[in-house]
Amino acid sequence: MDEQAQQRALDNAERLLGTPLVIPMGPGEPASGADFRALATAHTFGDSWTRTALDDRSRALVSVAIAATLGTHEPLRGQLRIALNVGVTKDQIVDLFVHLEAYAGAARAFDTYQVALAVFAEREGE
Amino acid sequence: MDEQAQQRALDNAERLLGTPLVIPMGPGEPASGADFRALATAHTFGDSWTRTALDDRSRALVSVAIAATLGTHEPLRGQLRIALNVGVTKDQIVDLFVHLEAYAGAARAFDTYQVALAVFAEREGE
Amino acid sequence: MDEQAQQRALDNAERLLGTPLVIPMGPGEPASGADFRALATAHTFGDSWTRTALDDRSRALVSVAIAATLGTHEPLRGQLRIALNVGVTKDQIVDLFVHLEAYAGAARAFDTYQVALAVFAEREGE
Amino acid sequence: MDEQAQQRALDNAERLLGTPLVIPMGPGEPASGADFRALATAHTFGDSWTRTALDDRSRALVSVAIAATLGTHEPLRGQLRIALNVGVTKDQIVDLFVHLEAYAGAARAFDTYQVALAVFAEREGE
Amino acid sequence: MDEQAQQRALDNAERLLGTPLVIPMGPGEPASGADFRALATAHTFGDSWTRTALDDRSRALVSVAIAATLGTHEPLRGQLRIALNVGVTKDQIVDLFVHLEAYAGAARAFDTYQVALAVFAEREGE
Amino acid sequence: MDEQAQQRALDNAERLLGTPLVIPMGPGEPASGADFRALATAHTFGDSWTRTALDDRSRALVSVAIAATLGTHEPLRGQLRIALNVGVTKDQIVDLFVHLEAYAGAARAFDTYQVALAVFAEREGE
Repeated sequence: MDEQAQQRALDNAERLLGTPLVIPMGPGEPASGADFRALATAHTFGDSWTRTALDDRSRALVSVAIAATLGTHEPLRGQLRIALNVGVTKDQIVDLFVHLEAYAGAARAFDTYQVALAVFAEREGE
Repeated sequence: MDEQAQQRALDNAERLLGTPLVIPMGPGEPASGADFRALATAHTFGDSWTRTALDDRSRALVSVAIAATLGTHEPLRGQLRIALNVGVTKDQIVDLFVHLEAYAGAARAFDTYQVALAVFAEREGE
Repeated sequence: MDEQAQQRALDNAERLLGTPLVIPMGPGEPASGADFRALATAHTFGDSWTRTALDDRSRALVSVAIAATLGTHEPLRGQLRIALNVGVTKDQIVDLFVHLEAYAGAARAFDTYQVALAVFAEREGE
Repeated sequence: MDEQAQQRALDNAERLLGTPLVIPMGPGEPASGADFRALATAHTFGDSWTRTALDDRSRALVSVAIAATLGTHEPLRGQLRIALNVGVTKDQIVDLFVHLEAYAGAARAFDTYQVALAVFAEREGE
Repeated sequence: MDEQAQQRALDNAERLLGTPLVIPMGPGEPASGADFRALATAHTFGDSWTRTALDDRSRALVSVAIAATLGTHEPLRGQLRIALNVGVTKDQIVDLFVHLEAYAGAARAFDTYQVALAVFAEREGE
Repeated sequence: MDEQAQQRALDNAERLLGTPLVIPMGPGEPASGADFRALATAHTFGDSWTRTALDDRSRALVSVAIAATLGTHEPLRGQLRIALNVGVTKDQIVDLFVHLEAYAGAARAFDTYQVALAVFAEREGE
């Protein structure tokens, strides 16, 4: 893998997440597991988040919408943190879930709004 | 939002769930979060569960089928409770999961049958 | 495969569909393709539709709900035909789609309601 | 249904789509089919698109992301038209599909980018 | 149900899982719940895993791919254990998740790779 | 984008597909559309299909399983062609769909088996 590209992806992830993206290897995980992390990081934080037609706020909204529609709780948590970090407001996140409820339904919206509630709680007082 | 419509939705939710539908605001949740809850409640318990071509039992079976197919565990739990409340039998719920296994597959059926088991355990002795 | 079980599944399919379930082999399809058809038929029309806790009408509603939630257009068409054959009314199908719109969202509901419209058109005058 | 709310939803749909939202009844469709259309229209164009925390452009991006992630082709087509109508650029739509490819995968992204290509073709010369 | 077919399915499950497949009835679960388990076991371990065009290793890879794409965590855990039991290597599982990341996206891949990490940890030292 | 990496991805795509991967720009498509194609090609044919823990046959089976589970018809068609090109037999593809029927259900399996039938017809006589 291209080291420069990988560094760009990690730098960009840190900028968006507010902390370095460090995912330690797990017990029993083969060494090739590092490739999985590196490729997934390059494809997302390297190849997409660095593009310029969409600003960070718009892309963060799109990210939250994709992860919520898929029902992927942990990735959604990360995207919600990024969204708040780049200036999406909590009210805008609520509006997004109202839209999700209309287009992807109440079952998916309730299923994933609990993740939003958990992230809102982390940011209490903001 | 129309207060009368909202009240109708809440009354209907209480009738189906057997307890008032009260979802307290979470820490750090913006005030607009109440709109999300109110709209989702209006769209489901107000606009759909009040219709009359399908009786409650039939609609409850449809609800369980939708939530199980989507794999939304918490919403499925609520729909299973409603189903038992309106007279769907446990044997009918099992038949529904047999049908889900055939049409939506063993992976999704096993994934969601654990929610049914949890609700069956709540109703032990019934 | 158990021939008696297979015959039971085919008989049951014919009862529900109103016509014999004959799926001819396709050009270039290997002989083993017949196993795929036979197993899928046995799992659905043999093992599930023959059960007795749910009556045909209830099971047909569940079937339509599963196929619509998955967004599988051709299987949905078949399930809608069965539903009308076993006595589900068009108004009940509309109620089901209203419920689908609420719980699985407007995008999936509009995507699949066009299949319902096509089946309604087949049964114009009923 | 509340006529004033319904009118507000239709007015808003027309504003976003650029043409009146008229969905004629189909042959054999029961009269209650009008309720399905009216409720789906109210939940989306009435209850969500009228909210103000998200501007139209942001909500259009979220809409496209939801419909593309679900793989609902016809609803996606409508959302793409709205997006272009409210000022989302074609380059921003491409960026959204690049993001979809990263987070929801190449299979879904290729499956739905063909809908974007069809809408781009409608707007050739813009 | 055919007892011989059921026994064949259970024997095959034990061969693949390395332990007998015993799923005890839950509290409050109706007796018919045993049918759900038996049918799901027959359809998977009886009717599919016993076929011979695909060898066990290939079918295990397909199984992991299906369960991961669906995002069904518990079934995925079982399929990963089977995969390691029949000789799929940890490096091959990582390659599968790299492929999943490319075709089904980073959100689903991260969501399900945590299940792989848990199974890798069970097999630490192998 | 790294030109060498892009060429490697295109070469690999040609090796697997048997013809050069040329996707012409569509009318009205913005120039940035080329980035979408290039990134999706790099992530799949460049970053994943070039890995070595899984052989081509195994990876092709995984690819077909992912695309079929997602219900993405056009991408599935491409993966089925690749599978036959790298030596997967038609009988093995049938076995895969039997497995899909068991784990992801008859609705999805019938929905996608029609794509397999179309590809089998292309290869009649093989």
